[in-house]
Amino acid sequence: MDRREFNRWLGVAASVPWLANHASAMSQDRGGNLTASDPDSNQKKPAGDPVRIGMLLYPGMYALDLVGPHAILAGIPGVETYLLWKGLQPIPTHYGINLVPTLTLANCPKKLDVLFVPGGTPGTIAMMQDNEVLDFLADRGKSARYVTSVCTGSLILGAAGLLQGYRATSHWHKRDLLPLFGAMPQESRIVEDRNRITGGGVTSGIDFGLLLASRLFGDDEAKVQQLVNEYDPHPPFVAGTPPQAGQVITARANQILAEGYEETRVVALAARRRLGLS
Amino acid sequence: MDRREFNRWLGVAASVPWLANHASAMSQDRGGNLTASDPDSNQKKPAGDPVRIGMLLYPGMYALDLVGPHAILAGIPGVETYLLWKGLQPIPTHYGINLVPTLTLANCPKKLDVLFVPGGTPGTIAMMQDNEVLDFLADRGKSARYVTSVCTGSLILGAAGLLQGYRATSHWHKRDLLPLFGAMPQESRIVEDRNRITGGGVTSGIDFGLLLASRLFGDDEAKVQQLVNEYDPHPPFVAGTPPQAGQVITARANQILAEGYEETRVVALAARRRLGLS
Repeated sequence: MDRREFNRWLGVAASVPWLANHASAMSQDRGGNLTASDPDSNQKKPAGDPVRIGMLLYPGMYALDLVGPHAILAGIPGVETYLLWKGLQPIPTHYGINLVPTLTLANCPKKLDVLFVPGGTPGTIAMMQDNEVLDFLADRGKSARYVTSVCTGSLILGAAGLLQGYRATSHWHKRDLLPLFGAMPQESRIVEDRNRITGGGVTSGIDFGLLLASRLFGDDEAKVQQLVNEYDPHPPFVAGTPPQAGQVITARANQILAEGYEETRVVALAARRRLGLS
Repeated sequence: MDRREFNRWLGVAASVPWLANHASAMSQDRGGNLTASDPDSNQKKPAGDPVRIGMLLYPGMYALDLVGPHAILAGIPGVETYLLWKGLQPIPTHYGINLVPTLTLANCPKKLDVLFVPGGTPGTIAMMQDNEVLDFLADRGKSARYVTSVCTGSLILGAAGLLQGYRATSHWHKRDLLPLFGAMPQESRIVEDRNRITGGGVTSGIDFGLLLASRLFGDDEAKVQQLVNEYDPHPPFVAGTPPQAGQVITARANQILAEGYEETRVVALAARRRLGLS
């Protein structure tokens, strides 16, 4: 389809009245930030109030765990995202990309719409025993509309006492540790149980972001973000889960992931005792 | 599958001799960096030499364009990734995530195995007319084994004269601008033409990263990274391309993306004249 055809095709859509109304609600400033001028046009969003999404950063996290859902959610009019850490210095992530926090834990709004925790061993192990971070998560988790994670971020939520009695998932390699926190692991890419939404390993964050976008703003807004991010995945191989990848590939992935497993389990057991679960 | 079952299942794979050999080639230091102790174990990788992947950063880029393929490639033993910009100060990306360069353009190795350019309007528009960046890309592009992009990064490659006579793709919204650089646009998520590999919008970077990993290191290494990143996508909606999304959703996405289109076209026409193509 060339641009002329595309514009003809759009011409039809432009005649839909609902769409013309919605157009006034979206604008983009020169910095590329989306702003909402008419929040009433979105039924699921409280008029005037931004939707506040607090995303934890920490050393050793996987950057993609967070950047995936951020790309989906931060583009929605009316969303404010906070990249949270103790300080504002750049945070070294697992593979050497440094991400910069935008707000300290101390300055984070008391009430978040979404609390989000990414994963990434060995950072996860440190966070599971970091009282400042766990206290912060437990506090904001009490009042957040959604308490969420991707990858081993669910182990940090668990250590903060936020998954007790909930079905949840995690990276396939460490999903079996969830019962230590009183959670019920589920072999699924995204698990939604009441207001807890947890995603599987790393790349699940994009699927997770779309589901969360639909819960917050409705299916159509999620679809708009899916299209803006051209999310029509075509993996060149079928190897995203151990059964798909087969034994040889899985054993190699396990070698990469194995080092942190035992330490994660020991720290999870300590967290379990602290939570009074054993 | 619980851990006991999983370990039993792995036990079978551990008896494969090739696998036991490969195990010695991979280790992970406490900072989470993967290191290769036995580069000879990978047939496609030149013994002893790292595979050097230079990835351009710039203000206004989409973080996910780069973080997606980085997550796949940076985990492979023997890969060195460079996040390149004029200076080393944090770079503000499109939705407010700041990424930190690791190497300046001036200090970048003369010979890269892979030259990679992410997309993201309005940053793309600035890069398409930034002589320092275009000269750098043209120079490294001459000798790189692979010249690559995701999203509107292909327009920057085009402005640097690197796509003339090549089939290529870009974000669906701006793909039709490729002919201005003498490239042949193809409606495809990833386009590979000789040593040029270009991806579609934003999320295509993960698929692109896997394809590039397989070209550099073989299919098995790509599959290992797919599994480590649990890339078994299950989008909750089918709306990743305009035909899938339908006219109403596409019109909304177009409103978000439209502002930069005309300016991008004007700058592309200027680049075309500079390249002597009109």
